[in-house]
Amino acid sequence: MKDKLLYEGKAKQVYTVKDDETLLVLSYKNDATAFNGAKKANFDGKGRYNNLISSKVFDYLHKNGINSHFKKALNDTEQLVERTTIIPLEVVVRNIAAGSIVNRLGLEEKTRFSEPLVEFFYKKDELNDPFINDAHALLLTDATEEELAQIKEMALRVNEKLQVFFKEIHLQLVDFKLEFGRNRNGEIVLSDEVSPDTCRLWDIETGAKMDKDVFRQDLGDLVTVYDNILNRLEALQ
Amino acid sequence: MKDKLLYEGKAKQVYTVKDDETLLVLSYKNDATAFNGAKKANFDGKGRYNNLISSKVFDYLHKNGINSHFKKALNDTEQLVERTTIIPLEVVVRNIAAGSIVNRLGLEEKTRFSEPLVEFFYKKDELNDPFINDAHALLLTDATEEELAQIKEMALRVNEKLQVFFKEIHLQLVDFKLEFGRNRNGEIVLSDEVSPDTCRLWDIETGAKMDKDVFRQDLGDLVTVYDNILNRLEALQ
Repeated sequence: MKDKLLYEGKAKQVYTVKDDETLLVLSYKNDATAFNGAKKANFDGKGRYNNLISSKVFDYLHKNGINSHFKKALNDTEQLVERTTIIPLEVVVRNIAAGSIVNRLGLEEKTRFSEPLVEFFYKKDELNDPFINDAHALLLTDATEEELAQIKEMALRVNEKLQVFFKEIHLQLVDFKLEFGRNRNGEIVLSDEVSPDTCRLWDIETGAKMDKDVFRQDLGDLVTVYDNILNRLEALQ
Repeated sequence: MKDKLLYEGKAKQVYTVKDDETLLVLSYKNDATAFNGAKKANFDGKGRYNNLISSKVFDYLHKNGINSHFKKALNDTEQLVERTTIIPLEVVVRNIAAGSIVNRLGLEEKTRFSEPLVEFFYKKDELNDPFINDAHALLLTDATEEELAQIKEMALRVNEKLQVFFKEIHLQLVDFKLEFGRNRNGEIVLSDEVSPDTCRLWDIETGAKMDKDVFRQDLGDLVTVYDNILNRLEALQ
């Protein structure tokens, strides 16, 4: 099915699809990177976990009225998606204060925000993905003011649905990062992946970190943690 | 007229006024600081220049329909202002790319933005006044969404007027920082100062920097530059 390698990112390869320009194949790699690539490792099986978990998330979102570029999982490490042009924004939604924001804004770690916070980061490796505001996003991307409002609204709806989704497997959704693309009809579509690489997830009972922070902060074995999440999801069905 | 020292900042002292709780006296100091206080110096006469220039700016804004906390200059270094509670935001308006934003967002220095950019920074010395977005401003200040919109709208109106004001003395308004306060009626009012300490001003003919960057970047004698600006303003009348 997959044809030519179009692009290789830190966590995925993107392939064209033979005879169908409207589709792409995402191939999840086993690489883990953190701190904008400064910390790197390779974990056997990681690509499989992210592909399968992300596929379940997109399926769930689709059933709950939120469409994305996701079509279907093709095998353990690959998924078929609608071809979109990525808008170079990392859209972060935060329910609970964790990570870099704590020191930057002088917050108490683990504080629950009264309203979820939405933040934009400019997706540009050379600049270290700087935090930006709406005016910068209008300057640096081709998104309009209405589209930025739509992206925020979609991110908040995804947050509502994902909180329920993860609660079912006893995980608290602390924060997460989304990306959006523009499809061939010019519509804004949820893209990229939703996985423990892109979400902060804390076990509701123990508070244990069950996401890429395990790798960032050397808290244990990443694959065991990702396997645990996939097992919890599979036990639901 | 002035009574008790209420607060001492990096550039000004704030005094209460005897028998009138609705007013304050601002006393401009000769201190210059940069890089959040990391670079410091004292310049004879600087307080006078900032007081007199800021007074002329607020007078001009008032004549052009933009009210502020400013009442009148009392003498060379002091001005009488309406008492407000400062909203802890530094509101930056940028017409041309200069300063830290250039490297942070990968812009070409001296690029004129098609629309002026408005940015919020959280006014908090301990945190180094971090750049924030609207969601953070709602979290960290008591300003409402409507008030944040009003602050942005006021900042853009000030920008329009100030561009004309400075053009009359052959200066290009590159960017500037405003602060807003809440008066006793709960209204949002332009506060603080508008001076070469808080604006980037480039000579229209020569491109020479005529603002605090002269001190930040050791480009020459700050007092000579501020004296030149005051002379240009006085020559207008």
